[in-house]
Amino acid sequence: MNYSTFFIPTLREVPADAVIASHRLMFRAGLIRKLANGLFAYLPLGLRSFRKIEKIVREEMDAAGALEMKPTVVVPGELWKESGRWDSMGESMLRAKNRLNNDLVISPTAEEAFTSIVRDELSSYRQLPLALYQINTKFRDEIRPRYGVMRGREFVMKDAYSWHTDDNSLDDTYQAMGRAYRRIFKRCGLSVIPVKADSGAMGGSGSEEFMVESEIGDNTLILCKSCDYAANVEKASCAADFTQAESIEDAKAAAANFPPLEKIDTPNVKTIDELCGFLKTDSKNFIKTLIYRAINVELDLTSVKGCEKLERKKTSPEAPLVYAEAFFAAAIRGDLDVNETKLASILRCSEVELASDADVARLTEAPVGFAGPVGLKNIPVIADLSVTGMSDAVTGALEKDIHYKHAAYGRDFSAWMIEDIRTVKAGDRCSLCGKELYSKMGNELGHIFKLGYKYTRSMNVTYLDENGKSQIPTMGCYGIGIDRTLASVIEEHHDDAGIVWPVSIAPFHAAVIPIKYDGAVKDAADKLTDTLIKAGIEVLLDDRGERPGVKFNDADLTGIPWRVVIGDKGLALSPPQVEIKKRGEKETQMIDAQKAADFISEKIQQELLALKN
Amino acid sequence: MNYSTFFIPTLREVPADAVIASHRLMFRAGLIRKLANGLFAYLPLGLRSFRKIEKIVREEMDAAGALEMKPTVVVPGELWKESGRWDSMGESMLRAKNRLNNDLVISPTAEEAFTSIVRDELSSYRQLPLALYQINTKFRDEIRPRYGVMRGREFVMKDAYSWHTDDNSLDDTYQAMGRAYRRIFKRCGLSVIPVKADSGAMGGSGSEEFMVESEIGDNTLILCKSCDYAANVEKASCAADFTQAESIEDAKAAAANFPPLEKIDTPNVKTIDELCGFLKTDSKNFIKTLIYRAINVELDLTSVKGCEKLERKKTSPEAPLVYAEAFFAAAIRGDLDVNETKLASILRCSEVELASDADVARLTEAPVGFAGPVGLKNIPVIADLSVTGMSDAVTGALEKDIHYKHAAYGRDFSAWMIEDIRTVKAGDRCSLCGKELYSKMGNELGHIFKLGYKYTRSMNVTYLDENGKSQIPTMGCYGIGIDRTLASVIEEHHDDAGIVWPVSIAPFHAAVIPIKYDGAVKDAADKLTDTLIKAGIEVLLDDRGERPGVKFNDADLTGIPWRVVIGDKGLALSPPQVEIKKRGEKETQMIDAQKAADFISEKIQQELLALKN
Repeated sequence: MNYSTFFIPTLREVPADAVIASHRLMFRAGLIRKLANGLFAYLPLGLRSFRKIEKIVREEMDAAGALEMKPTVVVPGELWKESGRWDSMGESMLRAKNRLNNDLVISPTAEEAFTSIVRDELSSYRQLPLALYQINTKFRDEIRPRYGVMRGREFVMKDAYSWHTDDNSLDDTYQAMGRAYRRIFKRCGLSVIPVKADSGAMGGSGSEEFMVESEIGDNTLILCKSCDYAANVEKASCAADFTQAESIEDAKAAAANFPPLEKIDTPNVKTIDELCGFLKTDSKNFIKTLIYRAINVELDLTSVKGCEKLERKKTSPEAPLVYAEAFFAAAIRGDLDVNETKLASILRCSEVELASDADVARLTEAPVGFAGPVGLKNIPVIADLSVTGMSDAVTGALEKDIHYKHAAYGRDFSAWMIEDIRTVKAGDRCSLCGKELYSKMGNELGHIFKLGYKYTRSMNVTYLDENGKSQIPTMGCYGIGIDRTLASVIEEHHDDAGIVWPVSIAPFHAAVIPIKYDGAVKDAADKLTDTLIKAGIEVLLDDRGERPGVKFNDADLTGIPWRVVIGDKGLALSPPQVEIKKRGEKETQMIDAQKAADFISEKIQQELLALKN
Repeated sequence: MNYSTFFIPTLREVPADAVIASHRLMFRAGLIRKLANGLFAYLPLGLRSFRKIEKIVREEMDAAGALEMKPTVVVPGELWKESGRWDSMGESMLRAKNRLNNDLVISPTAEEAFTSIVRDELSSYRQLPLALYQINTKFRDEIRPRYGVMRGREFVMKDAYSWHTDDNSLDDTYQAMGRAYRRIFKRCGLSVIPVKADSGAMGGSGSEEFMVESEIGDNTLILCKSCDYAANVEKASCAADFTQAESIEDAKAAAANFPPLEKIDTPNVKTIDELCGFLKTDSKNFIKTLIYRAINVELDLTSVKGCEKLERKKTSPEAPLVYAEAFFAAAIRGDLDVNETKLASILRCSEVELASDADVARLTEAPVGFAGPVGLKNIPVIADLSVTGMSDAVTGALEKDIHYKHAAYGRDFSAWMIEDIRTVKAGDRCSLCGKELYSKMGNELGHIFKLGYKYTRSMNVTYLDENGKSQIPTMGCYGIGIDRTLASVIEEHHDDAGIVWPVSIAPFHAAVIPIKYDGAVKDAADKLTDTLIKAGIEVLLDDRGERPGVKFNDADLTGIPWRVVIGDKGLALSPPQVEIKKRGEKETQMIDAQKAADFISEKIQQELLALKN
């Protein structure tokens, strides 16, 4: 490809909103342009790299046994109503109406579309397992699109879905996808951190996210300094610490030796901080009790104290019974935070939120600020493991200006559930090895997920098993954001001068730069370009009438892995020489012009092989 | 690929609405499934063929010097307001509003998106010519989507756009695209008919459509039985016939010898048919005069009689002055029809429609049914060439129940314009060779179009020419519908048993069918499959436990070009033999199993080569 007839509008200046390196460099190197906020066009150079990522993803999906298909980007709203997500997706889902007033959705993801197709074709267990995928346009109406294609409104996602007769089969495909994802990111030259992730409230049973470290990341990752433990903070757990009892029996036995429960006056003291000051003690000695409102709860609460009278309903004939709302108290040590994702997962509900002051007052029969697990009778208590071994705790007494001290789990109060509902922080201890955990910010590039029966049940998917009995298949889903992967490659591979592409993603493998595209230099450049192309190397020949410095800067900015400079001086040597430089390295070397193509070709093959293995 | 792990849900029955062969076969062979009216998902087998068409299109676009890029599918409504098409596209354009209430468009085409990007990057004539393309999702909210992917709501289009300093450069690219299109369709095994097409009212200066013959086609094609003349009826012209004068002078000279103009009473006679009956003559002897309302007229009418007082406005600062509406009389021989596309093109307006009865009465100062060119003073007359030599015509006299006879052009009336505005029909004579024209119905697969300055002017695109002067570039656009091309391949290549793919588009090149996938037959099938794959042949190995008849039927239905059947009997021969059959041919042949791979490989290469050259 000749530079002069290609379209690479490089820039010195970038828009003010381009605050991260990949966004700046994708603009400056002429890879993308903005059509509107969150909408980016890939220019020819950017598209070449984009397609290479698509190709790597496609190869690895095919190798993992998934079959590519292509539903539409615009899908009928009816499918989303069937699954129940028409309501739950909220404003991030872009909707339209056609001329017949039918609801349409610009796909943000495609569980529904794939499941509806499989539903119509699936009859026998012999057809399972089945894994299908697409690499196609998605749209999410982000509140704040930013960081270029890292968080755009329209993007391309590889999304795969699989259906299985049983959990073992689902696990096989889930594991195969996990391996494929590791290969994909390695081939792209990316350092990803696979982390345990929340698997959702609705029957999900396993979930792994593929993160890249990023200071502008949306996710907090909890990592162990010593072992390979890694989890999204939404899911992360930690080792038991000083206030956690070994068991309920231990807790009870220990509690018997504590001083008896005692009411204390705490006039005008409401917050934990105020209480710490007032009692001259530390938040570690309190039991904090928060009242939560849970929405669409799937758990059966019919025999749970305080919930006996709640009504359950179905949102569709195939959907499970749910409580539209239910209230719970979460009790946790005063210095810790409740992890609402964990709480929602335990309650198998779509969302939890702090209850309103009115609801708190009604349910605790006390003013806001005096909730506590002792004597709480109207709602179920979910106690974090951290309170089970607290030796001598202060907590609200369900009366204005009164707290308890010496409150002990197992003696003064019990709980409906004892669960891990804490938000793990840097400094907590690893649950695997006991060493210290630390945290990083990360961006999610991929996600593999055991969905279970959520969609197959709500959308009524069945097959006949070996005994001719109708069964519902279990399901997995697996996504990778192509745009975000591309931007992340640049985040990881750049320097002050521009992009430093891994050869697997580079738009061209080599830039051939004649000092002046004229005479013998032109002939030599044309010849070398020709030889390289015949060797399968993708070459950008800089045939422009620009100064060498401009050409060098553009080659650095666009990040082409190999640069070959051809000038009169080198050609005058015997044998004629050209100058070779690898992007990102400082050294240049002169090499016999005849041997340059072989040399570069071999280096490129080596790098591609290293990325693959 | 093993059949048992691939996903090919073949069907015996098809939906009732599948009335054309490609629609039926795409369903039956498991290539597509319907998500909603006009929305189709490509299943894995269908997508393989789809991607092959995309690849052929991409290769030929690249070879023609166009550069691939990728704007978004969802684009800001603002761009469409700039070009003026936000209003003119009507209901076929799917619109949405994001959460900020911004207007969005699901791209039906992309002149605006490409032009806006080029506008921002174009500075110098040195960057031109520039041709960019995408292969991407489009959406058009068809009133009646039907015939499967032949006329769906969502589809994939290759759309290319080019910008030029002058008409010669535009013509070079236009011609190159025309050659590329011919190659693309040839490589797909399609017989296309390139036809002259209407180039639009707004400055278009050349246009060619690539049609396939189809009884359900949207377009009427006019073709010559003798030479290669071919045009869309919207554009078609024909040789002068018996009522057309050689020149205005000839017309005047001839008219001097006609009997004088004479009024005749024609009580209660309004239509041409009634008049023929009443006067016992033929419609060929009448001059029919129709009053048209033209919308957004770009022509300058300031010195045209009847139009002096009309007001001109701009719809945007960059847009040309237009008349929102203007009225014209079209005079044509009674047995001919006015071609409204030609009329709109001549008037450089966006649309023409027959005027309302009230407007006709007002403008002709006579009841409807008595319009005629003689004495018509309030509106300009556009006369078809066919009236210039009429020797003795009957026409309306602008009075109730009165007609003229012996009306002659050049003596009794003149016209503002004499133009070709007739609709050419089968039986008319070819303008090139004089032989008879005939007509066919066709479906448009591709369209190349000299757009001129429509978008570059309305969207304010400029560059500096060699003298540093600001200029507006001229533009071309070039589209191919991928889905429709695929369906058309099947329309042209099928038989009663199923699809008969050209090898270039076939989802697999060869089907290897073991009579029973077991023992020595299995070993031979696996070995042959392996050898074929190593030779670059795409193989579907039918490893299912189905009866041979089922396997043969599915191979025929899915249209795989080469079928290799492996059975015990053949393998027992010396040397072992397999049976080879080409899809679409009746003969089978036994061939040495060792030589089968080479044989098929060579045949496939030959066919691919034949399609390319």
